[in-house]
Amino acid sequence: MIEMEEILNFQTVSRSLPQIDSIKKATGEAKYTVDIKLPRMLYAKVLLSPYAHAKILKVDKSEAERIPGVRAVMTFEDIPKVKFNAGAKFNHLTPLPDDEYILNDKARFVGDRIAAVAAESEEIAEGALKAIKVVYEELPAVFDVEEAMKDGAPKIHEDRENNIVAHISSDFGDVEKGFKEADLVLEDEFRMPGQQHLPMEPHACIADYSSDGSVTIWSSTQSPFQIRFMVARIMGIPQDKVRVIKPYVGGGFGGKEDMFDEPLAVVLSKRTGRPVKLEADRKRDLAAMSRRHPAVVRVKIGVKKDGTITALQLTTKMDAGAYCTSSPRICGAHGGRALAIYRLPNYKFDGYTVYTNTLPSRAFRGYGNPQMTFPVESMLDMAAEKLGISRMEIRLKNCMQAGDLNRLTGGVIESCGIKECIKRGAEAIGWNEDRPREIGRNKRRGMGMAMAAHWTSAVPRQTESAGAVIVFAEDGTANLLVGASDIGQGSDTVLSQIAAEELGMELKDVSITSADTKVTPWDAGTYSSKVTYLAGNTVRLAAADAKNKIIQKASKILGVHPEALVCKDKRVFVRTNPSVGLTFAELIEKLRQSGEPQIIGMGNYGGYSNPPTYVAHFAEVAVDTETGEVEVLRYVAAQDAGTVINPLLMEGQMEGGVQQGLGYALSERFVYDKKTGVILNQSLLDYSPLHSVDMPPLKTIIVQTYEPTGPFGAKGMAEGAFNPVAPTIASAIYDAVGVRIKSLPITPDKILAGLEKKEMR
Amino acid sequence: MIEMEEILNFQTVSRSLPQIDSIKKATGEAKYTVDIKLPRMLYAKVLLSPYAHAKILKVDKSEAERIPGVRAVMTFEDIPKVKFNAGAKFNHLTPLPDDEYILNDKARFVGDRIAAVAAESEEIAEGALKAIKVVYEELPAVFDVEEAMKDGAPKIHEDRENNIVAHISSDFGDVEKGFKEADLVLEDEFRMPGQQHLPMEPHACIADYSSDGSVTIWSSTQSPFQIRFMVARIMGIPQDKVRVIKPYVGGGFGGKEDMFDEPLAVVLSKRTGRPVKLEADRKRDLAAMSRRHPAVVRVKIGVKKDGTITALQLTTKMDAGAYCTSSPRICGAHGGRALAIYRLPNYKFDGYTVYTNTLPSRAFRGYGNPQMTFPVESMLDMAAEKLGISRMEIRLKNCMQAGDLNRLTGGVIESCGIKECIKRGAEAIGWNEDRPREIGRNKRRGMGMAMAAHWTSAVPRQTESAGAVIVFAEDGTANLLVGASDIGQGSDTVLSQIAAEELGMELKDVSITSADTKVTPWDAGTYSSKVTYLAGNTVRLAAADAKNKIIQKASKILGVHPEALVCKDKRVFVRTNPSVGLTFAELIEKLRQSGEPQIIGMGNYGGYSNPPTYVAHFAEVAVDTETGEVEVLRYVAAQDAGTVINPLLMEGQMEGGVQQGLGYALSERFVYDKKTGVILNQSLLDYSPLHSVDMPPLKTIIVQTYEPTGPFGAKGMAEGAFNPVAPTIASAIYDAVGVRIKSLPITPDKILAGLEKKEMR
Repeated sequence: MIEMEEILNFQTVSRSLPQIDSIKKATGEAKYTVDIKLPRMLYAKVLLSPYAHAKILKVDKSEAERIPGVRAVMTFEDIPKVKFNAGAKFNHLTPLPDDEYILNDKARFVGDRIAAVAAESEEIAEGALKAIKVVYEELPAVFDVEEAMKDGAPKIHEDRENNIVAHISSDFGDVEKGFKEADLVLEDEFRMPGQQHLPMEPHACIADYSSDGSVTIWSSTQSPFQIRFMVARIMGIPQDKVRVIKPYVGGGFGGKEDMFDEPLAVVLSKRTGRPVKLEADRKRDLAAMSRRHPAVVRVKIGVKKDGTITALQLTTKMDAGAYCTSSPRICGAHGGRALAIYRLPNYKFDGYTVYTNTLPSRAFRGYGNPQMTFPVESMLDMAAEKLGISRMEIRLKNCMQAGDLNRLTGGVIESCGIKECIKRGAEAIGWNEDRPREIGRNKRRGMGMAMAAHWTSAVPRQTESAGAVIVFAEDGTANLLVGASDIGQGSDTVLSQIAAEELGMELKDVSITSADTKVTPWDAGTYSSKVTYLAGNTVRLAAADAKNKIIQKASKILGVHPEALVCKDKRVFVRTNPSVGLTFAELIEKLRQSGEPQIIGMGNYGGYSNPPTYVAHFAEVAVDTETGEVEVLRYVAAQDAGTVINPLLMEGQMEGGVQQGLGYALSERFVYDKKTGVILNQSLLDYSPLHSVDMPPLKTIIVQTYEPTGPFGAKGMAEGAFNPVAPTIASAIYDAVGVRIKSLPITPDKILAGLEKKEMR
Repeated sequence: MIEMEEILNFQTVSRSLPQIDSIKKATGEAKYTVDIKLPRMLYAKVLLSPYAHAKILKVDKSEAERIPGVRAVMTFEDIPKVKFNAGAKFNHLTPLPDDEYILNDKARFVGDRIAAVAAESEEIAEGALKAIKVVYEELPAVFDVEEAMKDGAPKIHEDRENNIVAHISSDFGDVEKGFKEADLVLEDEFRMPGQQHLPMEPHACIADYSSDGSVTIWSSTQSPFQIRFMVARIMGIPQDKVRVIKPYVGGGFGGKEDMFDEPLAVVLSKRTGRPVKLEADRKRDLAAMSRRHPAVVRVKIGVKKDGTITALQLTTKMDAGAYCTSSPRICGAHGGRALAIYRLPNYKFDGYTVYTNTLPSRAFRGYGNPQMTFPVESMLDMAAEKLGISRMEIRLKNCMQAGDLNRLTGGVIESCGIKECIKRGAEAIGWNEDRPREIGRNKRRGMGMAMAAHWTSAVPRQTESAGAVIVFAEDGTANLLVGASDIGQGSDTVLSQIAAEELGMELKDVSITSADTKVTPWDAGTYSSKVTYLAGNTVRLAAADAKNKIIQKASKILGVHPEALVCKDKRVFVRTNPSVGLTFAELIEKLRQSGEPQIIGMGNYGGYSNPPTYVAHFAEVAVDTETGEVEVLRYVAAQDAGTVINPLLMEGQMEGGVQQGLGYALSERFVYDKKTGVILNQSLLDYSPLHSVDMPPLKTIIVQTYEPTGPFGAKGMAEGAFNPVAPTIASAIYDAVGVRIKSLPITPDKILAGLEKKEMR
């Protein structure tokens, strides 16, 4: 009941407010790392390996060093010999191998960091790279995950037994028993490619190493505190001497969750005594930085006649690329944690993450979930067809509901709007309308649907936590300090809304400073769709702490019971007699006079609950049977994220998720030269993500539930918006032309091949 | 007893550590406001009135506006019509009149702000100033405080009845009764000049007004939160939208306690949409910004034969200059608060602050105390001579002791080392040695002494308060956030020492961020010698809060009573069995795993106690009876400041105090053209402060006491180091040549005139 009251009374929360920094972003006043120019700043460039696998026999940097304007040339010889894992998170149960250096002693993929130059201009630095003479000895390379698993495959990391980074397995129930109980058992294999994050702002950082042994880093990052942790470790300096500042960030999508060039910029700055900027150009960002894990997934599913799933088994091979980063965790999430959408009595998962001589795979929106959702949703469609039940029916039969076991935490699913998502999504797309199949010459229409859930954080595998401090000014406005990183998604706005709501203030009366390791409390980083939920809970705690102090102090001054007091419009007053009260400014003045100068609230929160967001997507497509081309005619995305703190921003996430998902489904992939491992489509034009003009008419439906463990009922949502897109499109294509595509992206040639095969049958 | 234990066990406190930023300062890496250059930054210059008193009939700015590179020309017409008082402090009992605008509508002194230009370069701005055509109507002006008090004097602020800003009076006992009880009653008048603060860095600020209505200000200030308060008020924006950042500051001495050009830079930035820098050149800083209050002080003192003071009466006329700022408070401090050094049974004070057409007087090291100490100490010398007792005896007879009433707070003087200061100072100078009077041709030697006390803050007239937050990093090092401003004196170092001491950490393991209104807690500002004491107490509270949390949490994890635990070297452990414990890093990791990610401590402190620092100075001088020149042969400064947190830094303050005091005593003053009010000595050469080569051999003696209300026993000291210099020198000159000089500075012509007069007698 109290929750419903809260919902009814929201003032700042649940409102579609523009991002607090939208004007600055629109005017260009907002400074991104790439915009920052420090006095005496040098520009660094990195020499990338042209070989997929090679020993470095000799490096001669003397000529490069002699070029006027070159201030430092560094190779493996010059860097701290500390191996690290760029994806290392705090507090984890899945250990990750340290397998790379700031500059590597061996080339393991085309694009590996071999040497670096800092110079007076980017042009000079680029020129100097060409003057570094490296003698390589090429080694046999392996680019395919299954090839790399074979005995005798080229060993990528010498100190390891083989290329398998980790084998993760998990299970519950008894799948063999489950398959026996099934009326239908299907087994099939699916292949998913890598995908580039493509944030608007490429990776960039600046390091300024001071004569006093401290260092300041500006980084386009999702995880400034992780960079602090790792730079301190690599450089051997205390963490209080490493300041990582996150300026405005132009998107991350997981690609900025890990550390990249930051420690390299630090060593170059230390060497030169000057600030050093290291900015990846679009080509390097696209082809040599990171990607989503390519995966081969074998699915076996057992289903009863009525559609009830009796068992599910997944066997996955994930391509980690040349360096591990968080791969085993992503594989674990893929297999063990992404299954929040269906009730499964029996389940078994085996996942292998494997080194190959390709660019490293890293975290990416979905974190293993899309590689599970495409196969499983496709299999459900296949099972429904075999059983003669509808695609919707099989999903409604098996989907989670509030009150079900939350397998991740051992708790209970408290909020679940999936049935409402299906209902409203189906209505919006006209799921039950009888529309003509044929539209125009050679064009067939089809409808598809798919579902997914996504957890709101990485707990309990990883402890997720955040901190916040709120300090009041004399006029009763407040400054909020939060560790969490706004990477463009608008968390600064959402967290300010939460603070304002708790305090009964207007949004404009709260100003936020976030993600600066020297001045804000600690935060694990922006990933796992958790900022609104986790940092939101923390901010609410900090605001509640401040409010409690305000009420306790006012209670004494006014001589009324604290429970009689409420806060609104920067004023604390008696609920039943609003004329009796104090403005915050008056209260602060009185407190100061009595020796307590300020109101400071503190939030210190580590989450354990992990409520999933629920998503149902629907699409209508037209497939050209002559060209194989797919046109998405309409798209409907429905999602439950609890109380939505800012519907406008959620809508943006939903739209972005669909756009990125359509690229994953239909066009994005890396094209490798099979002999050299060189990526052939290194430009945006060739890589071909969806542009805004390519987007179909899209309807977003927000299904509001109330998640009691979240701030004002909220839970995470950003990754969920991506997960079901590819199977939705595949489902619609099958509906249109009867071709089941089991590998992404679904390119025209695959459809044409499928149509041909079908005709041959 | 507990205090003595603390003294014995100090690890970080009481050590002469170099300033934490000394390397950055030495290398030039430390950035002062004048060093900051923002992209697209404009440069502003201010048109200063050439007249001491004039109506502005017309301003034509059209020609200036047409100059290429000029981006804005502003006059009174263009600014917010909000009157303010640049010295306005928070929470006070002495109200101050609002009497000035950002740009004034009338010229009230030579140097008054009439118009301003923002342009692409300083040169263009300077040129544009010359193109602004102002038609003035000169008005009769008054430059002398006593003239200005007369009926019919030119009225400087039209809306006031006369030029008297305020009449402050205070008394206790009954002076008339006291004078009757005296064996000797003396009355005399003393005159003290203005003095310039002369910080190494002149006044400077930069404002960057954002399109979203917020503004960031970088200012060379002592009081960033005061600037926030006033800019918010003048601009009509909430305080959370005003960010004031104090970069490194090159000295203040009170001259940067008030606001200067900050709101002018803000309106120029708002108008142009670009950052605007406004830097005063040395000439403006010296002759048109601010000074110590010139004062005429009449003293009447009653003394018994044995030297006991029976009554003291002061009547003071203080020259506020053209705008009030904090003048009435400084006058009040001068009369009612600076008397912490002697036991006075009967006391009466009347003080007048008066407008004149001279540059505004403002806070300056001593805050009215020097204008009291010179007359009163001189009078004591005169009384001692008349009574035939020694100058030391009369002081020992009357000086305060621990246990005496603290007249300011109604409490008790808890620590008082004045007798020890006298004893050790006298020993060091050789007070009782019998040295020859005549040294060389026409040179006579003399010794002088004087004493003073100075309060540690402005309480209880003003509530003084500060805030601090300390946040631990994962490796157990800590970041400290403090509102207090380091203006070169080293408070960042001292406050870090205090935090480290409380936590048992090394200084290097604590990093500080101070005085940034958006990220640090509130602080009243750096003035009143209070930072070590007041912000120090606050920081200690924050550290103690963090330590308490560490101990409470560790107690539960280790299963030992919290009182059994101590913290040292980033570890919490059992005092009697140090092997049982946790490093801070281990504790933080365990806490995070259990859902409480961080250790944050908070300090929130408003002082009421106000313990004085005690100072005794001794000098030996040689006076040339032919030229009147004074050579200071040796100088000894002894001071009690409780526990000295950093003796090296205290020594620096003592040396600086003596240097500035010798300038006040012997050379510094403004020379006015009596007709126009123009200051004739506008350069450092002509103004002639003491240079380092002019300094006598100086011995500093630190007398350590323990002040129970201060952090680890500390109290304030910086202003105290200045106060007794002038009377010490005057005392020595009289001792040498028998000439009593009652006006400062003591220039050769005054001595020669005195010698002449003496001969004539």
